[in-house]
Order: sequence, then C-alpha cells, then structure tokens
Amino acid sequence: MSKKNVQDKLLIFALGGVGEIGKNMYVVQYGNDIVIVDAGLKFPEEDMLGIDIVIPDISYLTENRDKVRGILVTHGHEDHIGGLPFVLKNLNVPVFGTKLTLGLIEGKLKEAGLLGETKRILINADSEVQLGSIVATFFKTNHSIPDSLGVCLDTPEGRVVHTGDFKFDHTPVNNEFADLQRIAEIGREGVLALLSDSTNAERPGFTPSESVVGTNLEEIFRKATQRVVVATFASNVHRIQQVVNAAAATRRKIAVVGRSMVNVVSIAGDLGYLNIPEGMIIEPEEVNKMAADRVVILCTGSQGEPMSALTRMARSTHRKIDILPGDTVIIAATPIPGNERHVGRTVDELFRLGANVIYGPGSVSGVHVSGHGSQEELKLMLNLIRPKFFIPIHGEYRMLRHHAQLGESVGIERENIFIIDNGDTVEFQGGNARKGSKVQAGNVLIDGLGVGDVGNIVLRDRKLLSQDGILVVVVTLSKQDGTILSGPDIISRGFVYVRESEGLLDEANRIVTSTLNKLMNDNVNEWASLKTNVKDALGRFLYEQTRRRPMILPIIMEV
Amino acid sequence: MSKKNVQDKLLIFALGGVGEIGKNMYVVQYGNDIVIVDAGLKFPEEDMLGIDIVIPDISYLTENRDKVRGILVTHGHEDHIGGLPFVLKNLNVPVFGTKLTLGLIEGKLKEAGLLGETKRILINADSEVQLGSIVATFFKTNHSIPDSLGVCLDTPEGRVVHTGDFKFDHTPVNNEFADLQRIAEIGREGVLALLSDSTNAERPGFTPSESVVGTNLEEIFRKATQRVVVATFASNVHRIQQVVNAAAATRRKIAVVGRSMVNVVSIAGDLGYLNIPEGMIIEPEEVNKMAADRVVILCTGSQGEPMSALTRMARSTHRKIDILPGDTVIIAATPIPGNERHVGRTVDELFRLGANVIYGPGSVSGVHVSGHGSQEELKLMLNLIRPKFFIPIHGEYRMLRHHAQLGESVGIERENIFIIDNGDTVEFQGGNARKGSKVQAGNVLIDGLGVGDVGNIVLRDRKLLSQDGILVVVVTLSKQDGTILSGPDIISRGFVYVRESEGLLDEANRIVTSTLNKLMNDNVNEWASLKTNVKDALGRFLYEQTRRRPMILPIIMEV
Repeated sequence: MSKKNVQDKLLIFALGGVGEIGKNMYVVQYGNDIVIVDAGLKFPEEDMLGIDIVIPDISYLTENRDKVRGILVTHGHEDHIGGLPFVLKNLNVPVFGTKLTLGLIEGKLKEAGLLGETKRILINADSEVQLGSIVATFFKTNHSIPDSLGVCLDTPEGRVVHTGDFKFDHTPVNNEFADLQRIAEIGREGVLALLSDSTNAERPGFTPSESVVGTNLEEIFRKATQRVVVATFASNVHRIQQVVNAAAATRRKIAVVGRSMVNVVSIAGDLGYLNIPEGMIIEPEEVNKMAADRVVILCTGSQGEPMSALTRMARSTHRKIDILPGDTVIIAATPIPGNERHVGRTVDELFRLGANVIYGPGSVSGVHVSGHGSQEELKLMLNLIRPKFFIPIHGEYRMLRHHAQLGESVGIERENIFIIDNGDTVEFQGGNARKGSKVQAGNVLIDGLGVGDVGNIVLRDRKLLSQDGILVVVVTLSKQDGTILSGPDIISRGFVYVRESEGLLDEANRIVTSTLNKLMNDNVNEWASLKTNVKDALGRFLYEQTRRRPMILPIIMEV
Repeated sequence: MSKKNVQDKLLIFALGGVGEIGKNMYVVQYGNDIVIVDAGLKFPEEDMLGIDIVIPDISYLTENRDKVRGILVTHGHEDHIGGLPFVLKNLNVPVFGTKLTLGLIEGKLKEAGLLGETKRILINADSEVQLGSIVATFFKTNHSIPDSLGVCLDTPEGRVVHTGDFKFDHTPVNNEFADLQRIAEIGREGVLALLSDSTNAERPGFTPSESVVGTNLEEIFRKATQRVVVATFASNVHRIQQVVNAAAATRRKIAVVGRSMVNVVSIAGDLGYLNIPEGMIIEPEEVNKMAADRVVILCTGSQGEPMSALTRMARSTHRKIDILPGDTVIIAATPIPGNERHVGRTVDELFRLGANVIYGPGSVSGVHVSGHGSQEELKLMLNLIRPKFFIPIHGEYRMLRHHAQLGESVGIERENIFIIDNGDTVEFQGGNARKGSKVQAGNVLIDGLGVGDVGNIVLRDRKLLSQDGILVVVVTLSKQDGTILSGPDIISRGFVYVRESEGLLDEANRIVTSTLNKLMNDNVNEWASLKTNVKDALGRFLYEQTRRRPMILPIIMEV
C-alpha cells in the first residue's frame, strides 16, 4: 500500500445507480487515483419517449482522465457493463473482469469497434490489482449470473468494500459459494466504508436459493405431455443450466431461440460456464420434426419485450416456432416494474393459443427467484463487514432508505450512514466522513446513433406531439403588399381523423385567414408577431372545439 | 314470468369487460327484451396516446334501441358507471341502482347535462323489476364500495345470475353481509347460467376481510407522533369509514383533500353511508394550526396519479398541505398494473421529505385488501349457485381461463363453460347453449370532447411522433418554370436538439434542394412524385446519420 499524504482525501461517489435501478457506476478516488466500479446502462423511463438507452454523464471522469486507473467490473449484467462502449470511447482505460464478465464485454466492444484499443485484464477472486495508491482485491458472491465479485479497495485512508450485486445462496447451482470466510476476514481486518446492494432492501427474510427453481422445472418438464417453452433472462446462466439439467433428466433436446439467448449460451458454453451434454442442442428448424414431448425451447422474452422470441411466438409471428395447443410455457422471471402489462398480454396470447402458461411471482409459480439478497442477507453482509461508515447503493431512494434502516438496526450510527444521490460525494479524512461538494452527474440519453443530442426540449416536444399531435399551417405572402398568395394550408398529424373533421379544419382555415388579414390591415407584418397571433387564435379555437392542445407550427413564406 | 315463445332465444354477451379490466357492460337479451348490466369506462392502455378514457362501442344497442328495457347498475365504481354519460346520450333508457350507486351516477349525469332527461329508479336488494319478459331480482354482496349487488335475471329460457364484483367478507365494516341464504336459495331453485367476477381468479386462498385494515390503521395512527396522511381510492367508503374510526379512537381530526375524495365523502355522508362524528372534519386550511398529532389528512393519489393530491404533496406543489419530516404517510392501495412506477416515485419523494411511508402489497403493509374474492371465494360462489352453464367475466383472458379451470374443478362440464371475447354471443335454447354469431363490439376512444374521432391512423401518427419527432420541409416553387422561389425550409420538433445539429440540418437542406432540382431537370413535376422523392431521400439520409425515423412532412407550394 502506498504511503499516505496528509492533504489527500478519499472521495466516494456514484455517477449512476443510486436513486434509480440501473446505470451503475461508482467512483472511489484517493488523491490523484480514481478507480471506477462498473459502467452500466439503464432502460429509459416512460417519459423518455423514443430513447433507446440511458448512460451516466461521465464529465467528471473525462475532465480527470489522467487520474483514472481503471474500471473494475463486478459482473456481466447490462446495468453494470452496458455503458462501457460509450465510456471507453471517451476514456481509454483498462477494464478488469472475470472470465465470463470479460467474455460478455468483448462482444459489446467488438460491435462498437473498440476491442483492439481496449486493454482488458482478466481477474479472478484471488487477484490483487494495484491502481495507483489503491489496491483492489476481490471476493466471490452469489448472483443471477456466474463469476460475480465483490470488491475490496485498500486506500491510504482505509478500506472500502463494494459488494456488487449479491445474495447468499447456500446451495448454489454451480457449487461456487459466496466466500463467507474471506468476507469475514475483510471485516475482521477493519473496514472504513461499505457500499452494499439495496435492490431487495424492502423485502423481509431470505431470498430462496436458485436451486429450488431447478427442482420445480424438472417436475414441470416431467408432467408436460408436449413441448416445453422456457423464457428467462439470457444472462441467467444458472437458470439456463437448470433448464439443461431438467431437459437431460426428462430426455428432451433444447432449441435455443432469440438473439441474446443464442449469444449468451454460446459465450458461456465456450468459456466453460455451461455444462451441456453432447448432442443436446438442436436447431430451431428441427423442432417441428421431433416428438413434442422430446423438446424444450429456451428463449428470450420473459419481460414481454415487443420484438423478443416469446412475444413473436405468442403473436404467431415467429418465423420458426409456433405455439401449439397443449404446449407448456414457463415464464421464469418476474416483470420489472413497467413491464407488467406487456407480460400480461403475452400470457393472454399464449393461453389463447391453447398453451398451459406458468407465470407470476416466484413465490406462486416456483420458477423464479431473485438474484439479490433480502433483508436478512443484507444484515448478514453488514455484520460480516462491520464497517464504520455505510453507503447503501444500487436502488431507488426508498430502497436505500430501507437499507439504511437495516444498517441502523445492526448498530451502525445513524450519522455514519450516507444516503446519496448521483454526484453527491462523501469525503473521508482522518477516519471521519462528511458530505463533500457535488460532481456533475446525470442521464445521457441515447437515441439511435445520437448520444446526448436529445435533451429536455426534444423530449417535451415528443410528449406534446404524442398527446394531441400537430397542425402545420402554411401560408405564402407577397413580399410587395403582404397579400396571401397561397394557403393557408393546414396539415394535421395525430390530431383528429381528418375525413370526419373536415368542418373543423375548414373553420380553422377561415380563422387563420381572417387573423392574417386583420393583422395586415393593421400593418402588423413582423413574422414573429404574425406567427404568434396565428398560433394563439388557432390554439384557442381548437381547444374550445375539441379540448385538445395540438402543437401548432405556423410557417409563413414570402415570395 | 312471461310465457315462452318457442322461436325466441336467450342471448348473453359482453360489450366490455372480458379480455380486459374495465368498461364492463354485459347484455342479456330474450326475444325483444334487452337488459344491460353496467356501463363502465376503462383507462387507456399505454399505446393509446393522448386518450382520456375508453368506453364500449354500443352500436348493437343503438340499432336495437326499442328493445332495451334498462340498465341495471351493480355498484358505483368507474369501470361500471363511467360510461353512462356517453351511453345515455345515445340511448335514453331507465337506470336502476341502489342509493349510493345512484348518488354517484347523478353527479356524472349532472355534469353531462343529462340528469333531467334520465329516468333513475332506486332499487335495493329486495326489489323486483319487470323488464319486458325478464324479471330482475338482486342479492347483496361484499365489495370495496357499499351497496353492491348481484343480479338474478329470470327469463323464459331460464335463470341467469350475474355476480357483479364481489368478495365474501365475513366481518364487513358496515355489518352488511353478503346474502349467503339468498344466493343459496337462487342456486337451489336452479340456475341456467352464471356470470362471475374473475379479477382474482389467479390468486389462491381467501381475500382477507376489509376489517383487518381498520385494526392496522388504528395501530399506525396511535404510534404516529406527528401527522398521518392516508391516500386511498375515493370510492372505498368502507376504508374511509375505518380511517374515521381510527382517527376518532386516536383523537385526531380529518382534513379531506382531493376533488374526488371530497366528492365521495360528501355524497356518501349525505346518503348515510359514512358515520362521521360531529366536528371531526376540518378544512385543509386548518391543518397547519393544529397540533401535528391531532391531524389526519385523507386524500386521493394512491395510484401516484400526476395531478392528484398526494402527488402534489410529495412534490411540494400542493397549495395547502406540506409534508413535514416525521409525518406518517399511508398508501392504502395496491398499484394497478401500469402505475407501479408512478407510485414508486411518489414513495421516493415522500421519503426524501422525511416522511415515514407505509406502502406495498397489502400482505406486507397491512393497510390494503382487495375488494374481489380469491379462488376459494370464487369456488364458493360456483357451489352456491351450481349453474348449468358458466361464463367467467370481468377480467383479462388469463383470469377468465383460471376461473374456467376453477369451474371445472367444482364439477361444471368443460363444454358448458364459455370463455368469451367482447361481442361473442352465447345462445341458449331448450336448455342447450352454443356460441352464436358476433355482435359489433370494441373500444370507443375519448380524447377531450371527441368521442370516437381518434382512430388507428391518428394513434399510429402519435406513436411515430412520440418516438422520433417530425420534420416539416417547406418549399415554394414557381408556377411558370418550377424553380425554387423560397426554401427549402426545414423545421423539426422532437427530433434533435437543433442548436447542436446545425450541420445535419444544413446537409438535409442540400439533399432536398438537389433532389428537387434533379426532378425538375427530368421534368418530373407532379406533386405526389415530388413529395415522395423528397420524403424518401431525406428519410434515407436521416436514418443513415442518426438511426432515427422521424415523420417527414414535405409541403410544396406553388405561386
């Protein structure tokens, strides 16, 4: 460990991941050394119309690019790795991850054309990495993807522990246990600050082991007299392994369907994270040639995503697979908030096709468990680590609050718990901690190829357009005498069904004409004034007639 | 009972309420007599952009208006009465309801200017109503609003029972029990067909009694050292009564906040459905003058609705009430699918203001129970009625399917169970039943004052506009020689942030100009062709550059 400089401080903050679910990015800085933990994306909220994904604002990091020593990636989920292609484009620093994590990252970097120029460093739970004055070591955790790590950062100011996403699974599918001994040792040696996963901080008790899903899957496979379709998160390699095991036990072959599922099965298989018996995987084209009770279809679409494999099957628009009466469809996932209606619609469509659908909360369906620890596990982590300071991370504000309460309940002083927003810094010096100044943080919206070119004005316009549509009013005026040479023409989109509203639009036309003529007679002929008057008169009329407020775009040309 | 005509058939169908949650409207027709049960509205689905509410298509009823004998209303919820103002505008028939139900309906009719011309007939559980050849009697049920009824329709072809929305609450708040004896008697006398509420058909067990909420509320009120805010559905009069009781027991006064809450408390109070001690209600303005531990604020906003009282308080934009640190906020409701994120955001904001928030599923929070019976209650109803034929109603397709399975499980023949879509008829004759022909059914969208003037094209345009915005391209051409006199001018809304994309729009301009000039040189000068070419060239360019597909509106003027 490097020696301590009396003037240097330890700073901890999040650029994403607190007060939200997604775009996780945490920063630990000591003096001139910055270490980043994760670089995730977030899916857009419902008011971010037309946006594809959201990534963190990394202005602070690009302004301090010479200090950034590397990005440690805890595991391969999108909300932890999905921002990497955008971050690395602006910040060429080494990326550290375990084998599966790097495997999933490499696919992304390849697509972004960044594979060659990015230094990728393979680590495992026993690695030690020197990052300037900061030394990183790691510990194994359980999560819904293999090879997940927690991070221990020894800084001259003290030890910082970041749990990553975790649960304690005492019967893990791959027999890779969370390293309780190592975690306890880290705690015994003394921890200044703990950053811990708050996702399930609202949930009492323990999260069940992933293994219980396997038992239930096998029972369902056994009872099914025809084909079985299983939709789950592509990245849940443990779940996929259990589907493979249940298929093997019931002498079924597996067809893998859906781009990300094919991708993950291929990467995880190549890297040795999936144990698939020889000859078990069949092509989707072969499904129809096999006896129905010898087939499993493993696919994407557990969130009812409109373009996913399961949704296409449910709508009978999948090119290769049809759902047949008597098929069993298992949705091995819980809807993420916001997706409930999509999932419900998919379930309805599957039932209509005659399928037997197994779905719903894991506690009812038995085919899903969370990858995040519940309150008892969070308290266990707090008590294993016994930090002086505690920063709940990875969750909406209410989850952070609940997690803070859990911290208090196990004896951490209330004033030693920091609930932060993205950009809030916590400063540590001489064993004390306090809120520091804010660094820039926020959402960068990605729409198509555009990164950050859609801001509040564009979103506000999209919202307006989505509610009542638009009317474009075009008039050509004479340069000489201001008389109307052509128009007004009114074109509407998303406002009313035009054929049934001719009278309304004719009247609107007359109002524009008379407004303009009146202004001309009064010798008002600045464009701005003409436009404002047309907009106001027309807006008033339309609101009176329809109680709608379409966007009005007056276009006045002069020739 | 009128005599039977050998040629007449009994028809049962839904114009709303099956394959969906909302806009309940069921029709029972025997020969020339049509009886309608309920006329509800539905809130728009997320792809119905800009739509306010959705009501059933009643073309079949208006085409057969001389046969319609009346509308029986089972209870006063919006999804059962909200369509009445629109239906009654086109179909002036008598409306039958209990005191509270009529009270709530009258408010709506008054607003719509229909109160005078609508015949409203007060009924109670003991009423008997002759509707042509059909005789309607009623039975008391439990639901999350008082005065809820089930309907028994004796037709010459046999008896039809419609449960309305129901649960079996053995300890009802108002001591009004579901009339088990009467329901059993109806069943013993023989029932041809049962239509029964499927809302909770996916849920095992029994729905808890509303009374358990009262006990928990009182405990929370007692522990709270400062103000208590309770948000719940305005129409849940039982819940409101329990808030009143808990306030009385803990010597607190109640301020009622939010338009619909004020409305319901006033109507239910006037009609004797609420027992509020003298002097218990205070004005919202008085809240700040009272000791914090003597106050309860009863308000709307349990679904996180953007304009509701609780949401405004959470955002500190309510004119009269501020949330103060230490206040206790109880959200006594479960989010309706689609509202989870709104509720979550409200909870976060309340926590940020320092409130203690009690929320979440009723099984965790203890402050909410459903108004609909779970599987054991649905089976109890099936076994009390023991119908020959069974039509599950009131629910999404998956709920109807589960309910059908419950029907089978208690011994109803599978071929005697009809899962229907809106518009599907079931025909009964001579004790037999079969699917008949379809009648017109569907969604009528209401947007502002427009009823049904927003159709698929308008919605598709709103969707397009919401995703990538719009570009309007305006050019004025010379009538004589086709040269460009003015423009092209490109105006965009909701596409890109213009100031940062000047280069892109300049290039777009050049592409439009060169496309037009090329066409002119080739002597192509029909407008349709000019417009299509500009649209295609510009669309291609923009997609290449941005991977977005804004709506493009070329406007070509000639002078």
